[in-house]
Amino acid sequence: MKFTERLKEKLEPIWRQNHSHPFVVEMGNGTLDKEKFRFYMVQDYVYLIDYAKLFSIGALKATDVKTMEKFAALLHGTLHEEMDLHRSYAAQFGISPEELENAEPSPITLAYTHYMLHKGQNGTLAELVAALLPCAWSYWEIGKELSQIPGATDHELYGEWVRMYSSEEFGQLATWCIDLMDELAEGKSDTELLELEKIFLNTTRFEYMFWDMAYNNQMWPGE
Amino acid sequence: MKFTERLKEKLEPIWRQNHSHPFVVEMGNGTLDKEKFRFYMVQDYVYLIDYAKLFSIGALKATDVKTMEKFAALLHGTLHEEMDLHRSYAAQFGISPEELENAEPSPITLAYTHYMLHKGQNGTLAELVAALLPCAWSYWEIGKELSQIPGATDHELYGEWVRMYSSEEFGQLATWCIDLMDELAEGKSDTELLELEKIFLNTTRFEYMFWDMAYNNQMWPGE
Amino acid sequence: MKFTERLKEKLEPIWRQNHSHPFVVEMGNGTLDKEKFRFYMVQDYVYLIDYAKLFSIGALKATDVKTMEKFAALLHGTLHEEMDLHRSYAAQFGISPEELENAEPSPITLAYTHYMLHKGQNGTLAELVAALLPCAWSYWEIGKELSQIPGATDHELYGEWVRMYSSEEFGQLATWCIDLMDELAEGKSDTELLELEKIFLNTTRFEYMFWDMAYNNQMWPGE
Amino acid sequence: MKFTERLKEKLEPIWRQNHSHPFVVEMGNGTLDKEKFRFYMVQDYVYLIDYAKLFSIGALKATDVKTMEKFAALLHGTLHEEMDLHRSYAAQFGISPEELENAEPSPITLAYTHYMLHKGQNGTLAELVAALLPCAWSYWEIGKELSQIPGATDHELYGEWVRMYSSEEFGQLATWCIDLMDELAEGKSDTELLELEKIFLNTTRFEYMFWDMAYNNQMWPGE
Repeated sequence: MKFTERLKEKLEPIWRQNHSHPFVVEMGNGTLDKEKFRFYMVQDYVYLIDYAKLFSIGALKATDVKTMEKFAALLHGTLHEEMDLHRSYAAQFGISPEELENAEPSPITLAYTHYMLHKGQNGTLAELVAALLPCAWSYWEIGKELSQIPGATDHELYGEWVRMYSSEEFGQLATWCIDLMDELAEGKSDTELLELEKIFLNTTRFEYMFWDMAYNNQMWPGE
Repeated sequence: MKFTERLKEKLEPIWRQNHSHPFVVEMGNGTLDKEKFRFYMVQDYVYLIDYAKLFSIGALKATDVKTMEKFAALLHGTLHEEMDLHRSYAAQFGISPEELENAEPSPITLAYTHYMLHKGQNGTLAELVAALLPCAWSYWEIGKELSQIPGATDHELYGEWVRMYSSEEFGQLATWCIDLMDELAEGKSDTELLELEKIFLNTTRFEYMFWDMAYNNQMWPGE
Repeated sequence: MKFTERLKEKLEPIWRQNHSHPFVVEMGNGTLDKEKFRFYMVQDYVYLIDYAKLFSIGALKATDVKTMEKFAALLHGTLHEEMDLHRSYAAQFGISPEELENAEPSPITLAYTHYMLHKGQNGTLAELVAALLPCAWSYWEIGKELSQIPGATDHELYGEWVRMYSSEEFGQLATWCIDLMDELAEGKSDTELLELEKIFLNTTRFEYMFWDMAYNNQMWPGE
Repeated sequence: MKFTERLKEKLEPIWRQNHSHPFVVEMGNGTLDKEKFRFYMVQDYVYLIDYAKLFSIGALKATDVKTMEKFAALLHGTLHEEMDLHRSYAAQFGISPEELENAEPSPITLAYTHYMLHKGQNGTLAELVAALLPCAWSYWEIGKELSQIPGATDHELYGEWVRMYSSEEFGQLATWCIDLMDELAEGKSDTELLELEKIFLNTTRFEYMFWDMAYNNQMWPGE
């Protein structure tokens, strides 16, 4: 059994929580409060900047030119294309580029990104990929799942999100990450695999907390 | 005005939140639920391991031997003395060394430590110190404040905590951190000072969230 | 006076050494031993992989999206275009892609790249740029200088090198690095500027040692 | 066969070069030019500061408290004791503490330390230990070997060096590093072991170049 299959099987219950979070469910059936989505978009943009930094750590930690090239392409694509998409999508919700650039991260956004950044910077390439995988993989799965709901891909507000993450192009990115995880896990000792599993578990959990943060517009408590 | 005085003045309202958090207040008047403190101790132990790692980053980033020596002494002292104190104090609450070693970090513990670790690893020595300062400084202030409450230093459960953090020895550590912050801030541009302020603000906020996490025994949601 | 002008003026004598190294001079007048150039090309390819990693550190350390985008473009361009050029140029000297991929770095190549990598990873963005600047800047200057020599741009062996580094496109890259250095140096204290100068000096010196290593086919001593 | 035994066997010829370098031989028979040793001491002091930083990276990368404690003790011991020894030993050669603090690293010193620093910072704990091991291990072996030469431990100039590195205390440090290397190599794949071997080989080679640099008072060429 591939390492990612084992991961998925073992963490299925926690993984499923993400799919059934009200934010995701309501995005799929089109009832999600627009303000919640607006909050999400701003935090997602902030998140994406640091997520792109993970790709640069990938290029730094890679030990062969082919893997470096791929991370470089992901970094470049994220900054020069995906963030443009985000900016134009955000504009539909009345969010200006300035608001995006100046947005303050919520505590959960900081928590999630800095967990990945430190794991990536201090750890191995395999640990980096374990950290960044749940975001790419679960978005692809959620995208595909929601795209099965009649009308979801055409929804005037959330259709673009569903189309983006169920697209073939995004699927290729997710698949590349999954395959790289399997490749890097090969030959690792059990101790190392357990460590990878723990990282994957934690970022899967942070995914859930991110949806929850967006659904509840959570910034710093008491401020 | 020294940079740390400016910090303190500007962030006073947020800083004060930490002092008035129910966990802190009830620790001072001795009414804190023992289970909440037990939860805190375990998470604080996990936290302390990563906090010690910040001192090793300090030694790595230091540009003169004297600063390296000091960070080395803090790292060594934390691992060889402070953690021993924690282990024996924890034993009074029926927490075994094994429970401490095997404890899983809560999401807030992870968030707080990894924010500091990444800021330290990716940033300057000044940014590292801005990140680690609120913990040392606010513990000293809270320790001193609680020690003024009649009976607080002799409380059978929490007296040791109050004595530890109001002690002269701990005060010297906190003062060294404060002085180093001022020294490193000297000659920095306004942009850099604002960045230091933002880091200091965020870890001050994470301090609050840490008290809150302990008061509510918060682990991962939905598990 | 801009910081880079001050650098150039102060380090002129050391800087000029690079221009007058026999390897450079003989490349310009077309008398360079082909075997020396072959040795250089292989080491330069190994060097370039780590030089690209500096751009990924740049993206990681950047504090605004625009700078991240630029470093991402440089990383991507280096890996997807510049290295292709190197591979096809190398083929003219009978160097196969396999030989390039499997080449062992010489001690000077290791020294130079790891000095930059550590300075970049442990230091500030300004320190990273100070480290990588001499290579880009001096290649551009040498390229332009050699291109003035009659016949140099058409030389069957070295003409391509001269054209590549005297090109407008390469000049834009060098100029961007120079401008970024000036921008990042602004508002820095004298201590910080001296540190930047020291780094720039050291990589300028390593440039010289790199030419020297190539001219003398220097691998590990005694092996 | 333990990993370190395999390393030693495989790299024996290169390893032996260090033992038979004129600097080492002449230190053993007491004929070494005092000026060469003076040059060595200053560079060794500069080297030691960065070598200590490797211990702080060790504490940062360690995944259990016991290993952290040990690296913290090594860091602390190096900075608070070993460097004191160096300073007082240097004083016998008329080298003041100020000269030590202000000394500029030679290119080989920079090369060697920055290779280890980057490998340690970007790699795994095992890679860090592979990088720092040749220095500790070969000094211990050379110390023991030289201590067998009649009069070597009592030599007025070099006796202290021989006693220091043949001492039981230094042997314990070297043994700890060797044992940790074996422990960390356990369960690693062949690819990973080959990578560790390459790092160990390179720092063994840099050891040789360091002796050579000292023997020839090598600073930057052409300056």
